[in-house]
Amino acid sequence: MAIEIERKFLIDPIKWEALSKPSPDYLIQGYLHTEPGKTIRVRATNDKGFITIKGKSSADGLSRSEFEYEIPKAEAIELLSTFTKKTIEKNRYKISFGGNIWEVDVFEGANAGLIVAEVELESIEQPFEKPDWVREEVTSDFRYFNSALIENPFKSW
Amino acid sequence: MAIEIERKFLIDPIKWEALSKPSPDYLIQGYLHTEPGKTIRVRATNDKGFITIKGKSSADGLSRSEFEYEIPKAEAIELLSTFTKKTIEKNRYKISFGGNIWEVDVFEGANAGLIVAEVELESIEQPFEKPDWVREEVTSDFRYFNSALIENPFKSW
Repeated sequence: MAIEIERKFLIDPIKWEALSKPSPDYLIQGYLHTEPGKTIRVRATNDKGFITIKGKSSADGLSRSEFEYEIPKAEAIELLSTFTKKTIEKNRYKISFGGNIWEVDVFEGANAGLIVAEVELESIEQPFEKPDWVREEVTSDFRYFNSALIENPFKSW
Repeated sequence: MAIEIERKFLIDPIKWEALSKPSPDYLIQGYLHTEPGKTIRVRATNDKGFITIKGKSSADGLSRSEFEYEIPKAEAIELLSTFTKKTIEKNRYKISFGGNIWEVDVFEGANAGLIVAEVELESIEQPFEKPDWVREEVTSDFRYFNSALIENPFKSW
């Protein structure tokens, strides 16, 4: 198990648009199960598949336990089509800035219009620099959890 | 994904007792999620761990889809202690007979007293020989599903 510490931010779409970016990874994911304190996610990326079990989030949304296992991409797709009704699709850009990797998710489908940036930290107190295209923090806003976005997508807000 | 075809039988405890047997594998398992048509099982064996997702059983209980992934044993134990309230423990003996492997589960804890033998087949019609310690078939009796035994254990029948 790992403890995942992440902070999540909205971004400035105009500055983001102007940025020169690497190619994104196209992610499709869905949930075999979600309840408070336990989500079981299946994800297919460009070339891999994953099953990820996440535990209870801390009250501030900053940290949670995570167990992740790689599986064949074809089986991830098969699990999603067999066991999930709804999926989330997004393009994920990985951007190095100030010694950290920022993962920027540009959502599609029912969540199109939403762009979210996450930085993974080693500890809760770790200082970090923000790129100028990063706006307000939404780490503790549970609406932005992917497991929430699947049921209550951005376009319906 | 594999399609798992299994037939399940009770056994004659006296003949079973008299049999010379190999060392069993000690299994602890629990369920991250169960609903009709979807179970997510975590299992720790003597030396390995597994996550297994099983789909809907056919009406006769004979076949179901199965996705299984090996994980570190220590993480299987950690998943069980973090995410499950109840576990099933059993000693599993693998016995070769008539060209097939019979898996005999000798349950412990709340299911102690129950011994069940399973044979995995290539097709539903495949003929097979039964050892003389095998008694009546219980394949389509859903009480013997492990996901059912965890909630309604044998000792409470």
